[in-house]
Amino acid sequence: MDNAADYRIEHDTMGEVRVPASALYRAQTQRAVENFPISGAGLEPQQIQALARIKKAAAQANAQLGVLDPAIAKAIEDAADEVISGVHGYTEHFPVDVYQTGSGTSSNMNMNEVLATIATGKLGSAVHPNDHVNASQSSNDVFPTSVHIAVTAALIDELIPSLDHLAVALEAKAVEWAGVVKAGRTHLMDATPVTLGQEFGGYARQIRLGIERVRTALPRVAEVPLGGTAVGTGINTPAGFPQLVISLLQAETELPVTEAADHFEAQANRDGLVDASGALRTIAVSLTKISNDLRWMGSGPNTGLGELRIPDLQPGSSIMPGKVNPVVPEAVLMVCARVIGNDATIAWAGASGAFELNVQIPVMGTALLESIRLLSNSVRVLADKTIDGLEADVERATALAGMSPSIVTPLNKLIGYEAAAKIAKHSVAKGITVREAVIDLGYVERGDLTVEQLDTALDLLSMTRPPQAK
Amino acid sequence: MDNAADYRIEHDTMGEVRVPASALYRAQTQRAVENFPISGAGLEPQQIQALARIKKAAAQANAQLGVLDPAIAKAIEDAADEVISGVHGYTEHFPVDVYQTGSGTSSNMNMNEVLATIATGKLGSAVHPNDHVNASQSSNDVFPTSVHIAVTAALIDELIPSLDHLAVALEAKAVEWAGVVKAGRTHLMDATPVTLGQEFGGYARQIRLGIERVRTALPRVAEVPLGGTAVGTGINTPAGFPQLVISLLQAETELPVTEAADHFEAQANRDGLVDASGALRTIAVSLTKISNDLRWMGSGPNTGLGELRIPDLQPGSSIMPGKVNPVVPEAVLMVCARVIGNDATIAWAGASGAFELNVQIPVMGTALLESIRLLSNSVRVLADKTIDGLEADVERATALAGMSPSIVTPLNKLIGYEAAAKIAKHSVAKGITVREAVIDLGYVERGDLTVEQLDTALDLLSMTRPPQAK
Amino acid sequence: MDNAADYRIEHDTMGEVRVPASALYRAQTQRAVENFPISGAGLEPQQIQALARIKKAAAQANAQLGVLDPAIAKAIEDAADEVISGVHGYTEHFPVDVYQTGSGTSSNMNMNEVLATIATGKLGSAVHPNDHVNASQSSNDVFPTSVHIAVTAALIDELIPSLDHLAVALEAKAVEWAGVVKAGRTHLMDATPVTLGQEFGGYARQIRLGIERVRTALPRVAEVPLGGTAVGTGINTPAGFPQLVISLLQAETELPVTEAADHFEAQANRDGLVDASGALRTIAVSLTKISNDLRWMGSGPNTGLGELRIPDLQPGSSIMPGKVNPVVPEAVLMVCARVIGNDATIAWAGASGAFELNVQIPVMGTALLESIRLLSNSVRVLADKTIDGLEADVERATALAGMSPSIVTPLNKLIGYEAAAKIAKHSVAKGITVREAVIDLGYVERGDLTVEQLDTALDLLSMTRPPQAK
Amino acid sequence: MDNAADYRIEHDTMGEVRVPASALYRAQTQRAVENFPISGAGLEPQQIQALARIKKAAAQANAQLGVLDPAIAKAIEDAADEVISGVHGYTEHFPVDVYQTGSGTSSNMNMNEVLATIATGKLGSAVHPNDHVNASQSSNDVFPTSVHIAVTAALIDELIPSLDHLAVALEAKAVEWAGVVKAGRTHLMDATPVTLGQEFGGYARQIRLGIERVRTALPRVAEVPLGGTAVGTGINTPAGFPQLVISLLQAETELPVTEAADHFEAQANRDGLVDASGALRTIAVSLTKISNDLRWMGSGPNTGLGELRIPDLQPGSSIMPGKVNPVVPEAVLMVCARVIGNDATIAWAGASGAFELNVQIPVMGTALLESIRLLSNSVRVLADKTIDGLEADVERATALAGMSPSIVTPLNKLIGYEAAAKIAKHSVAKGITVREAVIDLGYVERGDLTVEQLDTALDLLSMTRPPQAK
Repeated sequence: MDNAADYRIEHDTMGEVRVPASALYRAQTQRAVENFPISGAGLEPQQIQALARIKKAAAQANAQLGVLDPAIAKAIEDAADEVISGVHGYTEHFPVDVYQTGSGTSSNMNMNEVLATIATGKLGSAVHPNDHVNASQSSNDVFPTSVHIAVTAALIDELIPSLDHLAVALEAKAVEWAGVVKAGRTHLMDATPVTLGQEFGGYARQIRLGIERVRTALPRVAEVPLGGTAVGTGINTPAGFPQLVISLLQAETELPVTEAADHFEAQANRDGLVDASGALRTIAVSLTKISNDLRWMGSGPNTGLGELRIPDLQPGSSIMPGKVNPVVPEAVLMVCARVIGNDATIAWAGASGAFELNVQIPVMGTALLESIRLLSNSVRVLADKTIDGLEADVERATALAGMSPSIVTPLNKLIGYEAAAKIAKHSVAKGITVREAVIDLGYVERGDLTVEQLDTALDLLSMTRPPQAK
Repeated sequence: MDNAADYRIEHDTMGEVRVPASALYRAQTQRAVENFPISGAGLEPQQIQALARIKKAAAQANAQLGVLDPAIAKAIEDAADEVISGVHGYTEHFPVDVYQTGSGTSSNMNMNEVLATIATGKLGSAVHPNDHVNASQSSNDVFPTSVHIAVTAALIDELIPSLDHLAVALEAKAVEWAGVVKAGRTHLMDATPVTLGQEFGGYARQIRLGIERVRTALPRVAEVPLGGTAVGTGINTPAGFPQLVISLLQAETELPVTEAADHFEAQANRDGLVDASGALRTIAVSLTKISNDLRWMGSGPNTGLGELRIPDLQPGSSIMPGKVNPVVPEAVLMVCARVIGNDATIAWAGASGAFELNVQIPVMGTALLESIRLLSNSVRVLADKTIDGLEADVERATALAGMSPSIVTPLNKLIGYEAAAKIAKHSVAKGITVREAVIDLGYVERGDLTVEQLDTALDLLSMTRPPQAK
Repeated sequence: MDNAADYRIEHDTMGEVRVPASALYRAQTQRAVENFPISGAGLEPQQIQALARIKKAAAQANAQLGVLDPAIAKAIEDAADEVISGVHGYTEHFPVDVYQTGSGTSSNMNMNEVLATIATGKLGSAVHPNDHVNASQSSNDVFPTSVHIAVTAALIDELIPSLDHLAVALEAKAVEWAGVVKAGRTHLMDATPVTLGQEFGGYARQIRLGIERVRTALPRVAEVPLGGTAVGTGINTPAGFPQLVISLLQAETELPVTEAADHFEAQANRDGLVDASGALRTIAVSLTKISNDLRWMGSGPNTGLGELRIPDLQPGSSIMPGKVNPVVPEAVLMVCARVIGNDATIAWAGASGAFELNVQIPVMGTALLESIRLLSNSVRVLADKTIDGLEADVERATALAGMSPSIVTPLNKLIGYEAAAKIAKHSVAKGITVREAVIDLGYVERGDLTVEQLDTALDLLSMTRPPQAK
Repeated sequence: MDNAADYRIEHDTMGEVRVPASALYRAQTQRAVENFPISGAGLEPQQIQALARIKKAAAQANAQLGVLDPAIAKAIEDAADEVISGVHGYTEHFPVDVYQTGSGTSSNMNMNEVLATIATGKLGSAVHPNDHVNASQSSNDVFPTSVHIAVTAALIDELIPSLDHLAVALEAKAVEWAGVVKAGRTHLMDATPVTLGQEFGGYARQIRLGIERVRTALPRVAEVPLGGTAVGTGINTPAGFPQLVISLLQAETELPVTEAADHFEAQANRDGLVDASGALRTIAVSLTKISNDLRWMGSGPNTGLGELRIPDLQPGSSIMPGKVNPVVPEAVLMVCARVIGNDATIAWAGASGAFELNVQIPVMGTALLESIRLLSNSVRVLADKTIDGLEADVERATALAGMSPSIVTPLNKLIGYEAAAKIAKHSVAKGITVREAVIDLGYVERGDLTVEQLDTALDLLSMTRPPQAK
């Protein structure tokens, strides 16, 4: 720390700062490093990349509109390309903590400084972080735009394909088990039968709806404030800048990014992120239900429901030998708990803006990107390591279906709800089947229904099939 | 309580129950009254109405499909119409607590019993709550459908028009104040100017986006499980029932209700409600920001920002004479806090399902309908009692705009960011204007810029206008 | 509405207001009624009562300190006593909505006006709402104090006794079932045995800890800002007022109310309520676990775990005859979801203060009192209608305990974890008992352990008893 | 990846696994690495350390109770000491993801395997991960115990001292500014004066109460399930083990760790963590209020309140030269948003247990430790970089105090609330001082009060001092 050769002196508008000799960043980044020793963690790499992409597009636009010398612009573009393509190699040069100034100015300046240093090296003459790299921009439009771009990319490129992957796995099981009858359960109590395939079809539909939720949130996430600069007015931009830089950004990112319909709304608020997080939250709710159902159907092997065999992935207990647990659904459930928490963070932060700026953008972006990453990774693991390998205990499932006293339900239409209730209770009390209870209570003998009617009514598989209109 | 004449004896499948003589309900409702002395509050009237509408449509469908005698069906329809049109007069007949069985079975049976009693009176012969009123139905499809219908109606008929009403009020102010310059504020610190109209335009856009969020959530809220009966299989429905009953329900409700694409998803999960609540939550986030901005712009009269005069509605203090407070924005903020809490309840409840049923439906429906009601009412009050009557202190707003040291920003392009920073600091330190600081520091004298350039650069209103492409 | 005789004219510092002729309240209340047509619901009666108690104590203190004429003070006290003792009869005279000004000024003035009217009637000469009833007070100290008093009372008088009632019920079952062995379950998978009594003892301990959580939160809830008046400085109070009024309030309420250690903290923040809500939230978490365990142990009767019989309270299904559901645990779970949501509301509101006042007090107080009421009522119902009547299926529980392959665990010490794992897997694969598997795999034959050691090791009840130090 | 020399073959009860040659861990860890490629992040180092401490204490206890050979026990102890003292050097050997099996079995086995490998090296003969390192333990008691120990340590050693540090800084300002009068603000509107010292005293008290909240939560966090092994019964422990191991753990950790009063409650639930998180949440609520007040008092420099000068730490804008922002309070606000979210995660996870185990422990522990770390670090930064360097603009603060129309309040007692209201309004309408308004409206002339009374009443500093009892 104390070897003078390890440091160089940089300056900014507040004076001089000692910066590590090897750092590509400069004074303002260093100040931020010293000001925010809080979490030890920086922005997500996806956001660093998105920031670099914005700088590249801005340099191009500035050159085209005559604001930047083309040679300087080209040097900035090339510098940005290096960071974009090799982001993981630049981690040490982006050391600013997530918990920094709420506008992300420190991270925007970090990017400005790194690109200025690289570009200066390329060009052989000074490229200025503010006057060149940040030209026609402000942290206040650039930084939130970088969040929206990173989130849009992560939703489109990671989450939707991962959810689709899971839905496909669930749909395969829905087909495989279309004819496997099992006991329905409502209130956790024995109900009329369903097929295992119907249950998995329902799970798949939940995931497909999750994809739809993400899709409907996308347009409002992909709407970016870039071009508004300091307060939404576009001060210090040349005419045509927002439109041009956004079209260049579309090309660079290959994302459906659009210019904010109202720059004052777009600059001051991050409602689109709150919205998107809400979609993830609903997906977490769906996954919680699915994971719990899986765990219960796989419970046992001997004292639980035992309808499914969940693939064995690892020994389940350090003390109970031979135990195997539904570890992947548990991991998914913990991911869901985290997504729920991140969502609370995002809503809380989203409500904290004042006037022309929200100042909790870094935590919103980081939490949202984390949620997307956790969901994307965990649903792939769920599909590959659990759903694909599930096996049904068909025999047990069918046997349990037949034991449910609720299979008395079709008799309502023949003998009425109250008589049917009497039969169900008799069956449970005596430990006999519903069919036996019907006969035992004399319904057949009295001619209330025939044995044929009884057997037709009690056919399990037909109870799972909605009647077809002719 | 003990006068035998005040009671009659009813029975259900579990035996006899003493019911108030005047009650239209019967045994199962009474059991629920006794089982759930918890909150003292029942379902929202909108949901009671929706339940009655479902019963009416079901009776019609049952008659058309030959499941119910047309005369019985007609009696049920007429009974339902009475409840639908006069729901507030029937409050005492729907005494079941919100905190009841999680499927809402008690409330479904409450409706079945009330309609059976009324219909029996009309028909002159017994109409049975289960065998007739509930024919082809189960609480498990009827009750959640009633929530979705009530929510769909409330979103379309109450919330969207109320939000539109607020947006219109905000838009009028955006136009009125299009030329009123004021200081922009980022991080709460002096920034470059905006117009008051731009700020209100941004608020209006937030509300318009809120309407859009509700609209995109609607299709998934309007998808109902009706026809799935007990577990989604449609057991005990005649062929064609789901399609017919839903088309009748569309006609009855005049809502865009659709049959669930997958009855197993739709019966077991209430994800669509979680989703819709997420949209309300984002609206609450928007309203929080708007209300806080209003409060701060109206702060003072003498020690705050004092840019807006909020209409005086009532004395503000029991001790400080003459004080007037921004009471309506405060009420809106409290509504937002409640909506945020209801949203947490709904997500928590939404994740609690197992197998074929979620068993926290009553609390989800009640919380969601409450959120819609609170938001709808409070944004109307906000528009009518606060936004419409807002007055700008134009003189003060303009004066403050000119005092912001950030108006130095346009000089970046003329003399660079670092020189501009020196000027801004000099202006604050000396308590002089930016224009004076430029001259004081010799920039004009040295020929870095002319007085004309300076005056053009420092024109406040032009700073609020994005440059136009030619 | 338009009959002039139905109204009288009142005035306040803002002018004249038309008030219903029969209303005990006056101008400011009427303004609030018109300003806040939002939820349709007013404050909880407990808070109205607490407000009246504060007014009574303040009148006494004011008289003793020479601020109020003793006759006026006496009239105010008598008026307050009427409201305190007959609060439910005064509902129509306290019509102000929860969603009002965030300081609760409207409700404080409502109380001032009602007491002024009653006291004027008693005294025969004018008692003024502000100058007399509100003397030495401000809404800003009175209103939050009324919340803290109502909450303190509700915690002590309602919640703690109700929780104790539930704990007693659970403890009785812990004793009753001390010797009933059942399968332990971790990860929902078969584990080593426990007794049903141990499980219920654990539940009881959770509730006892819940009581402890409430008790540790109480001192900070019972600390009240009264005496700080407008901003915490005690402006317009006579010397000694805070101490005197609080000691009178202690006598009046019989609660451990204390004066705030720092009036600026106490006036500006409602952290003590956030804290208390956090305790309720933890109780809701405990009750969620307990209710879910009950539901699962009671699941079946034929396709679930079937270890407990939950008392039948009402028919469980409108379509499935004879079905009975765990309706009370479900109601409790919904209460928990609501408490979780109320807690989110309270934290959100609690963070919204600025400078000398939090302005979301009414929603905080109402949500917290609702949570206490719902928890208090529902845990009593849970104890009385579910826990007390639970029956264990001892035979089934014991049988399942013996079927868990994890009973192999005691063999670790005899033959090692890896050999024991082999046995457990063999037992499941072959569908034989663990004992049979041990023999089948030759461990006894090879002399790794004797039959006596085996039988000792496999004794189920001894597995549930921690070894005793000699 | 494919070079065979880089790997070795390990086995566990499920078969063989390829493990990196240099890894200290073995088969089960490797399985977990492959099963959970989800977040890329492992447990917090504090929890790794706590796990090692438990293993050390268990080895000691096992040796003392004759369960382990003393030489093996010593080797395990020494191995544990290496990990405890050099935890950061072992990061690569603890690669298991947070999102793993919910019991933390993978991490417990990871520790068992690493210690077995190190101990084997020391001893020269095989030390077994389960039979030796894990002797008398289960993941189900060890893993949650490790969370409680790490949290207890972090609360006592990090959070409380950091909060104290902040409180001291605030208290210094309370003393420094005891005589600096400023405008009080309620509802953001001008109120009667307070001193800046009073405000900072209130903030300090909030933090001191936060420490108290943590302290009251500690006993229930420090109660650990160790000794309960698999399901709370203590199966496979020697007599006296829980008491001995916990007393050894107390010695090792120097923490007030206690044995769970009820092992079934303690094993199945993590309510104590929910509780502790609730305390952190309340602290986040307090810090949110304080940070917002600081930001508003520091707002400006020219268009805001401008009562405080917040230390300049870094340039505030990439576009607006010379702008300086309250960056540290913003970072603190983002920390608070994260703590709120972590708290939601913890409550959600805490409610997800079933029967003998909660299976979301890793995410609970990680979120809670993160919250403590973020709060601890950020409040130190707040104290050192913001509070210590705050400067009051005494002149401006005093001037604003005198401009508040609410300083009319002391006149209530002389001329009544209604007359005082008239004066306040007159003062604002005419833009004159309250003193001038009193005279202008003729109150002195008419003899309602004397000039001396008026001047005494309007003394600002005396308005901030509660009257003293004689």
